[in-house]
Formats: sequence, C-alpha cells, structure tokens
Amino acid sequence: MSFSEQNLLPKHVKIIEVGPRDGLQNEKTLISADDKLALIDMLAESGLSYVESGSFVSPKWVPQMATSSEIFSKLNKKAGVTYAALTPNMKGFEAAMAVNVDEVAIFGAASESFSQKNINCSIDESLARFAPIMDAAKAKGINVRGYVSCVVGCPYEGDISPQAVTKVAKKLLEMGCYEISLGDTIGVGTPASVSAMLDDVLTAVPADKLAVHFHDTYGQALTNIYTALGKGIKVVDSAIAGLGGCPYAKGASGNVATEDVVYMLNSMGIDSGIDFEKLLKAGWFISDKLGRAPISKVSQAMRAKQE
Amino acid sequence: MSFSEQNLLPKHVKIIEVGPRDGLQNEKTLISADDKLALIDMLAESGLSYVESGSFVSPKWVPQMATSSEIFSKLNKKAGVTYAALTPNMKGFEAAMAVNVDEVAIFGAASESFSQKNINCSIDESLARFAPIMDAAKAKGINVRGYVSCVVGCPYEGDISPQAVTKVAKKLLEMGCYEISLGDTIGVGTPASVSAMLDDVLTAVPADKLAVHFHDTYGQALTNIYTALGKGIKVVDSAIAGLGGCPYAKGASGNVATEDVVYMLNSMGIDSGIDFEKLLKAGWFISDKLGRAPISKVSQAMRAKQE
Repeated sequence: MSFSEQNLLPKHVKIIEVGPRDGLQNEKTLISADDKLALIDMLAESGLSYVESGSFVSPKWVPQMATSSEIFSKLNKKAGVTYAALTPNMKGFEAAMAVNVDEVAIFGAASESFSQKNINCSIDESLARFAPIMDAAKAKGINVRGYVSCVVGCPYEGDISPQAVTKVAKKLLEMGCYEISLGDTIGVGTPASVSAMLDDVLTAVPADKLAVHFHDTYGQALTNIYTALGKGIKVVDSAIAGLGGCPYAKGASGNVATEDVVYMLNSMGIDSGIDFEKLLKAGWFISDKLGRAPISKVSQAMRAKQE
Repeated sequence: MSFSEQNLLPKHVKIIEVGPRDGLQNEKTLISADDKLALIDMLAESGLSYVESGSFVSPKWVPQMATSSEIFSKLNKKAGVTYAALTPNMKGFEAAMAVNVDEVAIFGAASESFSQKNINCSIDESLARFAPIMDAAKAKGINVRGYVSCVVGCPYEGDISPQAVTKVAKKLLEMGCYEISLGDTIGVGTPASVSAMLDDVLTAVPADKLAVHFHDTYGQALTNIYTALGKGIKVVDSAIAGLGGCPYAKGASGNVATEDVVYMLNSMGIDSGIDFEKLLKAGWFISDKLGRAPISKVSQAMRAKQE
C-alpha cells in the first residue's frame, strides 16, 4: 500500500457482529435460546458494540430465528451496545418493536435475478415495500441499517456491475438508512472486483456511510476487507467463529470470522475496542454447541496453543 | 491500492509449487512414491513451471522424504518445468546430483534462536556450511535458491526485525543464490509486518530476486501476498491443497494453498500460466490420498459445485 493509501487506513474500525443472525440462520443445528443469550452476552462482554441478535421472519422459512422474540425479551442489555434485528416486512418490524429491538435492518439486492428468485419481486418493488418501515422507524426514532446483497456476484447472473450496486446503495441512503452494508453474499469478490465496486459506490455514497460484509467462500474476505480499509471504510461486518459456513458442505459461504478480522486489525495497530481473549472464548463456546471447530484459522491456532 | 501501486502489480506471477516437499514433509500419512509421482505429474501438467519435488535429508528426521531419490529417478520430466530439491548439506547435494535434480535450495533463518534450536549453530555458521554446496553447484552449472525462514516471527523469539531478514537475504544473494524466498514459517505475518519487512529487504535485494513464502496459520497469507505483489514481487511459493497444515492439530501451519493464490491472481487479471481445472484435480487427488479435504476454501467450494 502506498503512502497516500496508508493515510486512509482508519485508526479505529467498528465491527458489526452478525454471527447470532446472519451466521446462525445458516446453521442447521438448532441452538437453544439460552445458548444464544449466553453467546450474545459473551460477544458484548468482549467489547463488540453492535450485535445483530435476531431476525423477525417466518419460522417456517428460517427455523433458527424462531426464538428471536424470546431472545430480545430476555437480553441482558449492556450499556453502549446496540442489539439489532433484521426486519423484512412491517409485521417483522412490529414484532421487533414489541420486544424493544434497538435498531433494525432492511435489505435490497444489486441483482434483479436474485431479487426475483428470492423475494419474487423487482429490486425497486422490494425497496418500495420497505417504505412503511422507514416511516414507522422515523416516527419512533429507530435507526435503520440497509444491506445490499450480491455486490460483486450473483448465483444466477454472475458478475454484477458496480453501477447496479451504486444505484441500490444510493436509494437506501435516500430512503433514510444511516449506513449501507455492501454484502458479497456468495463470497466471490476479490481485490480487483471489490475495488472497482467500491470506487463506483463512493462516487454516490460517502465512505463514512458504508460498511463491508464479506463471506469467505473462496478465502478472499480478509484481502477484500484490507482493500476496503484502504478506501476509507471503517465499518466491517463479521461473524464469530465464521458462523454460517460449513467447509465440507455444498454452497459453503460463511461470513468472514470476527476473530480473523480482529487479528488483522490488531496487527495493523487499528483499534476495534475488542478483548481478543474474550472474543476467542465466545467463538469456542458456540462452536462447541455446534459440535465443530470454528471456521477461523486464527481461532483454531490459538485454541491449539492453549490445549 | 492507489494508482501508483496498481502500476507495480505484475502482469505475470510465477508460482513455485512446494507441496510435494514443504507440504508433504509435514503430513504424517506416508504417501507412496507412485502417488507422489502422479501428483508431481499432475502439477506439471496443470502448467506449473517449478515443482519442489523432494528433500535430501535423513529419512530418520523426515520419513516422508525417504523416497526422494526414487522420485527423481523415476520422474517423467516435462519440458520447461524445473524439478527442484532441498539439500541441507553436501551429502544431500551429492545425492541430489546422482539423480539429476534440476535445481537445489538451501536455507538460513532470520532468527538466531530458531537456528540454534533447529540446526544447533548460529545463522552465520549455518550459511558458512553451505559454501561447499555453492561451489559445487557453480561448477556443475546448477542454480541454487535460498530460503530465509522466520521472516516476521519466530516461535522462540517472537517478532523478528526487518533488518535481521535483510542481513540474511543479502548474504544468500552474495553467496550466489539467484532468488531469495522470504518465508513466514509460523504464519504470523500480516500486511503491516510483511510490508515493513519487505520495505527493508528491498533496500538491499531487488524485487526481481525475491519470492514470498507464506504459511496460512492465521488466515493472513493471501492478504500478505497481495501486499507483496504491490511491492513488485513476482514469485510466490505455495502448496497444492494447502498441504502441510492440519486445521485441527496443534501448531497447524500449512502453506498457503496454490488454488487460493491462483484464484486471486486470475481474478486480478494476473497470468500464472496455470489451468485452474487441472490444478484443482491435482489437489483433490492428493487430498483423497491423505483422507481429508483440501485446506483451501476455493478448492472445497469448487468441488462442492461439481458434486
């Protein structure tokens, strides 16, 4: 990295922990509400200031998220920590409000085919459906975070143009989202494609309104995060223990592991406010509940050292 | 990466395949000479131009390498491919010459403690012991590659100063090595430490005489390679299927997987002359022989797609 880009590297990075939601929803082993609560507590105690803790969707579609209302009702909230949830529709938003969710997230795809196949409507229609949530959230003073999925590739269309991402990101910002998380849902991004995508999005959305959200399907997530940091982005989504991906299953596409991201940040002298030991323990706790090793080389290597 | 550094990104990268040597020597499951020969053939057929195929060490110390003479005697050499071996002493060099090894490699550590604990002598003494090999190689017109180990960290000393690496790299170059491979033996390097180390080494050794050799213990190898490419380095060591590392064992420290490196290079439009499909098949072949999945997310994801 050249001198000019090193200057862009942030001194502090905020980690958005998505393990209890985006991670666990892709794990087949059902985790009890008590274990989820214990995990969320450990994550908050490690210093994470933002934990996406559930999703208010139909339990028929996402059985792992059926406990979300229970989770939020029983949460032992720590001061300074935001406990957020994904709310795909007004019904979900109301359910979230009933249990005092701090903040909600909505989503749009950068791929028309993905939007059609997944939620059976166009991108524009999908965003329009979120208008009532934006209004209700504004009335209640609730922050709304926006996700864009398929920002570099789509399982149906292949490559996605940076301009398609910019369009959706800009729309979510205009709708009132305070932050836009750019998600490489299928993990195909690499420094070249991520760089081109970010350069275009940054023409319309400032770096301090952006977050990046990488899945590590092809092992490129850390390199992609490093690329994003060099462009002034300071918010990174990740999941404890790389939850959501099984290395031996079809379509493996877990989130990048929080442990791997924090290890890299620490080594670069970038503060994330996280106690690494406590973070590792949270990852070992949930991995043991799932009966497998963490999908994080850092976590495995540190555990091997301790045993 | 800024405009100035993008200009440094090479158009072509040479991969030094170290799986059959540095990879396999750390695998406990003994692989037969026939299977090794089949693997080496598949690697050469995939377009790799350099395959480190054995090591002439005492079989008491490294049982997996006991077949090295047999391997080189039976190799079906492909034109344009260099089949190399590690030769730790004159006896090893002579054994290598007896079976027509194309090129040899010697090594020095950047850490005094590592040198003492591993080969029971100082760094300077270890390099002095290679002098007869350098002379004999010169007389026979055999190229010698130099490895430097522990270039960012040492299991005994912790952090290693960039100056210590520069000193050994410069010495190996002066001794006549045509290329110096900088090895992060324990995989602790990150963009910050690798960048500082390379900046110092580059004051004494030009980029076109350097290679980088990363182990992926903490998942940082690709990011480190990306950092090195941005500094004009065009030669990368890697091992098919991430051989040499077991994700569930103590001290796991496999080489970065060739598949992961080639996937990243391809996506950046950097040519390595490798047929990706053939490379994947070579990785699946040896992983099946070892009875485990490749330590490469790319390879696992591609295999899952095909099944």
